[in-house]
Amino acid sequence: MIYDLIIIGAGPAGITAAVYAARKRLKLLVISKDIGGQAAWSGDIENYTGYQFITGPDLAAKFEEHMRNYKIAVREGEEAVDITRQDKAISVRTGKSSYEAYSVIIASGKVSRELGAKGEAEFKNRGLTYCATCDGPIFAGKDVAVIGGGNSALDAAIQMMKIAKHVYVVNITKQLGGDAVMRETVEKGKAVTVINNARVTEVFGDRMVKGIKIKREEREENLAVEGVFVEIGLIPNSKFAKIIEKNEFGEIKVNCHNETNVPGVFGAGDVTDVPEKQIIIAAGEGSKACLSAFRYLNENGLVSSDSTAY
Amino acid sequence: MIYDLIIIGAGPAGITAAVYAARKRLKLLVISKDIGGQAAWSGDIENYTGYQFITGPDLAAKFEEHMRNYKIAVREGEEAVDITRQDKAISVRTGKSSYEAYSVIIASGKVSRELGAKGEAEFKNRGLTYCATCDGPIFAGKDVAVIGGGNSALDAAIQMMKIAKHVYVVNITKQLGGDAVMRETVEKGKAVTVINNARVTEVFGDRMVKGIKIKREEREENLAVEGVFVEIGLIPNSKFAKIIEKNEFGEIKVNCHNETNVPGVFGAGDVTDVPEKQIIIAAGEGSKACLSAFRYLNENGLVSSDSTAY
Repeated sequence: MIYDLIIIGAGPAGITAAVYAARKRLKLLVISKDIGGQAAWSGDIENYTGYQFITGPDLAAKFEEHMRNYKIAVREGEEAVDITRQDKAISVRTGKSSYEAYSVIIASGKVSRELGAKGEAEFKNRGLTYCATCDGPIFAGKDVAVIGGGNSALDAAIQMMKIAKHVYVVNITKQLGGDAVMRETVEKGKAVTVINNARVTEVFGDRMVKGIKIKREEREENLAVEGVFVEIGLIPNSKFAKIIEKNEFGEIKVNCHNETNVPGVFGAGDVTDVPEKQIIIAAGEGSKACLSAFRYLNENGLVSSDSTAY
Repeated sequence: MIYDLIIIGAGPAGITAAVYAARKRLKLLVISKDIGGQAAWSGDIENYTGYQFITGPDLAAKFEEHMRNYKIAVREGEEAVDITRQDKAISVRTGKSSYEAYSVIIASGKVSRELGAKGEAEFKNRGLTYCATCDGPIFAGKDVAVIGGGNSALDAAIQMMKIAKHVYVVNITKQLGGDAVMRETVEKGKAVTVINNARVTEVFGDRMVKGIKIKREEREENLAVEGVFVEIGLIPNSKFAKIIEKNEFGEIKVNCHNETNVPGVFGAGDVTDVPEKQIIIAAGEGSKACLSAFRYLNENGLVSSDSTAY
């Protein structure tokens, strides 16, 4: 069995591509380790047009529901480990199996960047986390540190302001970045201290996190916290795509039509080199990638289903 | 007063750009003849990710509400008639006034293409319309013709199937295009006749439409209908943008970062040469255009508000 289209990833980009593909009646398979992608890990979302306010998990649930409505075949929990192309058939190998299609959309998103500090691995899930939305409530009434200074760090800080006793925002640059609205919320927070120009050199504790060492202008000091939220950026899930051209950050290079260097393979969302990482943009790119894949299939006479020319 | 950003148009692209700009605290003006754009004229929408099903007017209302929530200055009912650039200031002239900004996003969308048939002008709003969503209910229980064969014609036909006595779909090509899902709905419809390979040569009647003349394989015949829905495509609202490069269809040329040929002027949504005309794509492009404009303002030291580097 050769699919018309395999979509790798089921975040906003992958799900939107899947909905469009289902509506084109393409023979379709979605392969993803999880559903919802980064959206599911977001806190409060106020910039997905049409929803003035929605939480990340709620929006991700709406996305999933939208996709499930089309009875699309989804291999959940599987991760792509390799992708190859021979003649016009593209093979996607996962840890469990191998699948073939005439077109593939890579929408595998990103994972959190690690801090690289001493103790990070040791205290992972023992007080150190990469997801405030997932783990925030564990730290109710405690002192915590958010590491980072962009929108995702601000998002984590805003979430934790409502939960924790005190929030330290440890930011490596001169001042916080991100959206003005979010920055103001953090800066006005009563139980928040922003520490700029600071680098985390160590996470310490016994069985659980007890604090972090930070370095400011060559001076090291200890900050006693029980929770550490690492929000210093993301790394694209693109290692498996060995035949695909990437930029220096490992992001899949796509042109304006979401085409990669390999015919029949398209990219969409945070895994690509489209500079802005936003849910609404990922969704739009997912739709574009699907319509490009559909055009490719038609132009090459590869549509095996009853869908017709666009 | 010089704005940071003027957005021309308030459809999905313009509204999304406005929400993003407001969150960046940009000094912002939106100029638009109406709110909601083509979305407001759509029938049932099933491919805006996160909304399994919503009507066009309802989605447009949600978009408007989202924008209004930020107390953005909106000049509704005004249309841009010219845009010029001197030094770094860009002037947008409307029929009523003139406004200046350091950056502009053109998101002025499209208007319906005219049929070019005899009687079209005479019977406009006397039975002939370009908007099934707006005018459909007027034709309850009557015989109507939808002219066109793509998604917007299918959408109009599906809407009218529920309202009219009989729907003729008059399509100039060999077979219907558009989404398989929508095509099937039309083809399965009991009170629908699809007439392929047919061209409308005349709209006739007395005070109101009484029928159309269609030509198939050199044979002309009359079709008695009281309603005519013209759905044969759209023309970009780009005439006012004389300094902006366009393609052969009059669409504003943008690169992957939504930049036009004029520094500080960006494009988003249906008015651009991005090939796919979809609400979710327009919204994503609006967000991208805003973030590109924001980067441009920062790189050129032109941000007059309290927003900071991205």
